[in-house]
Amino acid sequence: MKISPFSPQKKQNVQILDGISIAVTNCGLKKNLKNDLVLIKLSNPSNILGYFTTSKTPGEPIKWNKSIIEFGKVSLILINSGNANVFTGKKGEYALKKIVSELSIRMNIPKKEIYIASTGVIGELLDEKKIIKQIPVLIENLNNRPEEWIKAANAIRTTDTFPKIESKKLGLKKDIIINGIAKGSGMIAPNMATMLAFIFTNAKLRNSLLKKEFGKLVNQTFNSITVDGEKSTSDMVLFVSIENKKQKKKIVLKSETDLFLNCLKDLMKSLAQKIVQDGEGAKKFITLNVSGAKNDKEAKIIALSVANSPLFKTAIAGEDSNWGRIIMAIGKTDTKIDSKKISIKFGNIQILRKSRLTNKFKASLLDDYMKNKKIDISIDLGIGKGNSQVWTCDFTKDYIKINADYRT
Amino acid sequence: MKISPFSPQKKQNVQILDGISIAVTNCGLKKNLKNDLVLIKLSNPSNILGYFTTSKTPGEPIKWNKSIIEFGKVSLILINSGNANVFTGKKGEYALKKIVSELSIRMNIPKKEIYIASTGVIGELLDEKKIIKQIPVLIENLNNRPEEWIKAANAIRTTDTFPKIESKKLGLKKDIIINGIAKGSGMIAPNMATMLAFIFTNAKLRNSLLKKEFGKLVNQTFNSITVDGEKSTSDMVLFVSIENKKQKKKIVLKSETDLFLNCLKDLMKSLAQKIVQDGEGAKKFITLNVSGAKNDKEAKIIALSVANSPLFKTAIAGEDSNWGRIIMAIGKTDTKIDSKKISIKFGNIQILRKSRLTNKFKASLLDDYMKNKKIDISIDLGIGKGNSQVWTCDFTKDYIKINADYRT
Repeated sequence: MKISPFSPQKKQNVQILDGISIAVTNCGLKKNLKNDLVLIKLSNPSNILGYFTTSKTPGEPIKWNKSIIEFGKVSLILINSGNANVFTGKKGEYALKKIVSELSIRMNIPKKEIYIASTGVIGELLDEKKIIKQIPVLIENLNNRPEEWIKAANAIRTTDTFPKIESKKLGLKKDIIINGIAKGSGMIAPNMATMLAFIFTNAKLRNSLLKKEFGKLVNQTFNSITVDGEKSTSDMVLFVSIENKKQKKKIVLKSETDLFLNCLKDLMKSLAQKIVQDGEGAKKFITLNVSGAKNDKEAKIIALSVANSPLFKTAIAGEDSNWGRIIMAIGKTDTKIDSKKISIKFGNIQILRKSRLTNKFKASLLDDYMKNKKIDISIDLGIGKGNSQVWTCDFTKDYIKINADYRT
Repeated sequence: MKISPFSPQKKQNVQILDGISIAVTNCGLKKNLKNDLVLIKLSNPSNILGYFTTSKTPGEPIKWNKSIIEFGKVSLILINSGNANVFTGKKGEYALKKIVSELSIRMNIPKKEIYIASTGVIGELLDEKKIIKQIPVLIENLNNRPEEWIKAANAIRTTDTFPKIESKKLGLKKDIIINGIAKGSGMIAPNMATMLAFIFTNAKLRNSLLKKEFGKLVNQTFNSITVDGEKSTSDMVLFVSIENKKQKKKIVLKSETDLFLNCLKDLMKSLAQKIVQDGEGAKKFITLNVSGAKNDKEAKIIALSVANSPLFKTAIAGEDSNWGRIIMAIGKTDTKIDSKKISIKFGNIQILRKSRLTNKFKASLLDDYMKNKKIDISIDLGIGKGNSQVWTCDFTKDYIKINADYRT
């Protein structure tokens, strides 16, 4: 497999987080003895927030997690790759419940504090025995060394070409830390893209405030990326505020809250961008800024319409500044636009100003710009104050190769 | 360019239609002196119906035609390829009006009976002088030979790999004929897919009846195909009932009407299917039958969600019976489903029955089936009586090649 050109060059530095321990092993769902099972244990029941796919055919883990999220506490998260446990009927539900029950008994933890995430093949039965057999191994290996985070980020990969991990420390006396791991659009055998993200912090905020703000951040980060416009059956983002009786990292001041939320947004944005940068076959990372829309919602509809347009994405793959395809993608949305007021910039090069071609730039400059690995495109609709920023990747022959030719 | 594997093997037989004449020429919008301009003249003002793209950034011809369609009569249709006259601002509007006005004066025809269609590059100014210069040539060459239909079907191509033409004669004493030409998703220079279709008949039906029925047929044919889910700025379907004072082919009987509408639907379906079969890079022609949905509308939403899914389309390109991607594409719609009642068939091979895998078929049979050029997939949702049939093509590396690599 080709490694994404955006794969980080140096090893990630991970902060130690107290009150959480991780273990990683192989249970045989992935071939070649690769790690495919991760157990994350919180020393004390901790506050959890969760965002899940809106798919009408969600996987068993999604259904389970949604059924317990109202209790708001987590003690365990078990993640497996290699099988998504989606569309596996009664047997899939049984497999999940058996795993939860086994974890509950062995670790003496209420079921409603046990979260499950699965990614991999859909429609294939999950052999719960493979997972259950490894539970004692996982329990024995639980520890909070930084390396374990990196192992976990690797174990949840399917065909992601690099592990996605972020670790941040706030510039506060309190030693506030946020760690996050994620996986993106990868494929194993006949399968689909799935986005999973798990974020942990030792900070404690007022729960109602956090809930409100975290929802906004998910919207601005994980819900602002697209690789191919597909909606996975297994997507989830979990956020855990670690309960640690020894150290209480309460954030109370407004200034601290703002600092924390900014840092959290940065971390979530980085993870989300890494997912796109490792999109199947991706060679270009595209940032779309839409401004001047009727409102933020319409700005995002337009940004996603461009970001999901195969014709736009293939143009970028071909290093072609084909703004006509942007106009087409704007036009196909059901939003308010004025076709006399659209401005488009590629990087700092203005192409359209109020729907008129600006002839001041040199075509050769634009051609040069298109050769960059990172492409920024700004679209101003000139009619309101709505804004949105969305990230995507180009659409290359390797996307087709990964998704069509893997059996040949 | 690779010719589509679905290109017809033998030359199309075209019926002569009285009361209509056609001329074709090259005006320099296409390179290599290829024909790029078609004039279609009706001997008498004739009834016209039109369906146009719902894009919010439509081309000038769309805006013009929509402004005159309420008058319901047509005497001339001018079609050019090589330039779409989209997003060309005031100059584009001027170019169109100049052409209409020139045709009106030279041929003594009211402007409101002159329809224009353009397909090609968007955002590039249309040099109306190129077209106007050829008007006398076109007028001189107008004739109603069958060859002229074939020339016209070729002249409206952009990078369609074969001309799309259908000609049908009804088994009635009255010699009722329907001729149609269309173009599909092709590209020239930096550009986009555009669907154009022009259908002519010597039959006369009650106008209100025709209007109602034709709308339904457009929905079941041209609006039931997708190549890449993009909505063109220039799509149109025009239907003309030729006024011929010598011969009055009035259809009055219910039985005649039914026969005519069936024949018309067949013709429209054939043209629509040819567009998909000549979809960019297409190697497989896919028919999706959705049944048992809440209603027809939801059946179509589901069928189009599958038909537009890059993951599904790449699986078909890879000859992989990956039904999991169909479940994902169903799940991402906002429709009513019961995940315990979904049945899926590939050809005659039942895979899922009420969401359970049927193990009776041999995997090797399914693998063989996937090698066919034509793939039929049936999805039954098991909850209602809604049906829909949609046609699409697979998603191959050639799609990316055509849309990304044409400059290299």
